[in-house]
Amino acid sequence: MGTVYLIGAGPGDPGLLTLRGARILRRAAVVVHDALVDARILAMAPPQAERIDVGKRYGRSFPQSAIHHLLIEAARRARTVVRLKGGDPFVFGRGGEEVAALVAAGVRFEIVPGVSAALGAAAYAGIPLTHRDHASAVTFVTGQENPARDQDRIDWQALAKTRGTLAIYMGVHHLRDIAAQLIAGGAAPDTPAAVVESATQPNQRTVTATLGDIAEAAQQADIDTPALVLVGAVVRLQRNWFEERRRTRKVRREAAVSGD
Amino acid sequence: MGTVYLIGAGPGDPGLLTLRGARILRRAAVVVHDALVDARILAMAPPQAERIDVGKRYGRSFPQSAIHHLLIEAARRARTVVRLKGGDPFVFGRGGEEVAALVAAGVRFEIVPGVSAALGAAAYAGIPLTHRDHASAVTFVTGQENPARDQDRIDWQALAKTRGTLAIYMGVHHLRDIAAQLIAGGAAPDTPAAVVESATQPNQRTVTATLGDIAEAAQQADIDTPALVLVGAVVRLQRNWFEERRRTRKVRREAAVSGD
Repeated sequence: MGTVYLIGAGPGDPGLLTLRGARILRRAAVVVHDALVDARILAMAPPQAERIDVGKRYGRSFPQSAIHHLLIEAARRARTVVRLKGGDPFVFGRGGEEVAALVAAGVRFEIVPGVSAALGAAAYAGIPLTHRDHASAVTFVTGQENPARDQDRIDWQALAKTRGTLAIYMGVHHLRDIAAQLIAGGAAPDTPAAVVESATQPNQRTVTATLGDIAEAAQQADIDTPALVLVGAVVRLQRNWFEERRRTRKVRREAAVSGD
Repeated sequence: MGTVYLIGAGPGDPGLLTLRGARILRRAAVVVHDALVDARILAMAPPQAERIDVGKRYGRSFPQSAIHHLLIEAARRARTVVRLKGGDPFVFGRGGEEVAALVAAGVRFEIVPGVSAALGAAAYAGIPLTHRDHASAVTFVTGQENPARDQDRIDWQALAKTRGTLAIYMGVHHLRDIAAQLIAGGAAPDTPAAVVESATQPNQRTVTATLGDIAEAAQQADIDTPALVLVGAVVRLQRNWFEERRRTRKVRREAAVSGD
């Protein structure tokens, strides 16, 4: 029986995978991965390794139970099975469900944490998540549950009262409703907010506005998934070094091409 | 003028540094680091690199303004200056303050995110931070501010109402008061809670109890810093693979020594 390694691939930039994650990946026989994992990370596995994409694409999703079955079956025939997930396996990654399935099947496992999307977005957009003068807490919350529906289990109004930074994962589609709920809960409409699209990737784009205006601003800018929303006073401290440097490089490249 | 790289060294295990962090560290001329950064990570810098420990030790702390001065001065004489921080630079790391100082001094910088302590503790203690059935949010909060004092800016009672997981950094000393505040805010005294000491290190120890009993349990077990506290229903899902494996190995080693 082999071991299944649940590995966090990080937020996008392949350089943000951990050393341990890379080391295990280099000896993997089977790699079961999400759609968002960068091709350069998948290329770290041996050429002959079997790669299975179980990510959601084209509106179709691979059922979670089928992923469990795949992992258990792979561990029966291979020594090193890697389950590669975007970000961190235990933050909105269903890592807990996969661990439970492996335990039930008697399969040995290890967990390698990763740089979660909020940490990547904050670093590359230059927005600290906490700050002695502005935020003593940061909450990572999923925006995928529809706040306009009754069965939503997230108490956005309670989150509005924590006085910390909010990092909302997969929150772009419901951003208008989420912002409305936060404001109803007492958040000031002029609280600074940012949406970071394709965080840590070369095409990263950040849109900043106030909580009251952020949904409109994101729509105007045609922000698409994957995107992470940051809400809180810390957004005002932004130093957008990564995107500014890329723009400077682009201007230089264009000047070189045109012979200036 | 050189560049200052603010790099997250991760939660402890040197394998949890990122590839990009390691790559930059290997060409560093100056490394300004916290006390908690593992010696094996510091050893990745070139032998001739200047290493400056600005961490808090023996009750004495290096003033933040002196760290800023050091970084700016180092960037004037070296091409690659690394500011190496435990965990992630933007989660309770004062990264925001250091970035502001570098910007004010006109020093170029980059930020390399890291695996924050809560992610490392969760992975190596086998406790998912979020779970579809149990927690749609996780809050990282500092427990260093004394909740028994008036100037505490953390609204523990509001945090008790978020229904998500709580990850409390540096919370061991004030754990009794924090738990009392959370219970006063409506958290059930029988909410599962865990303290993870020296997370991701070979000497990692986890103590689990209820929120009502966790301060007493941590004291009984002589839990010391660094330690991370996790509170929420997800603690009940714990699969303590890392500590169990270490115990199994120890038993095997002892059996081998005694000739069994």
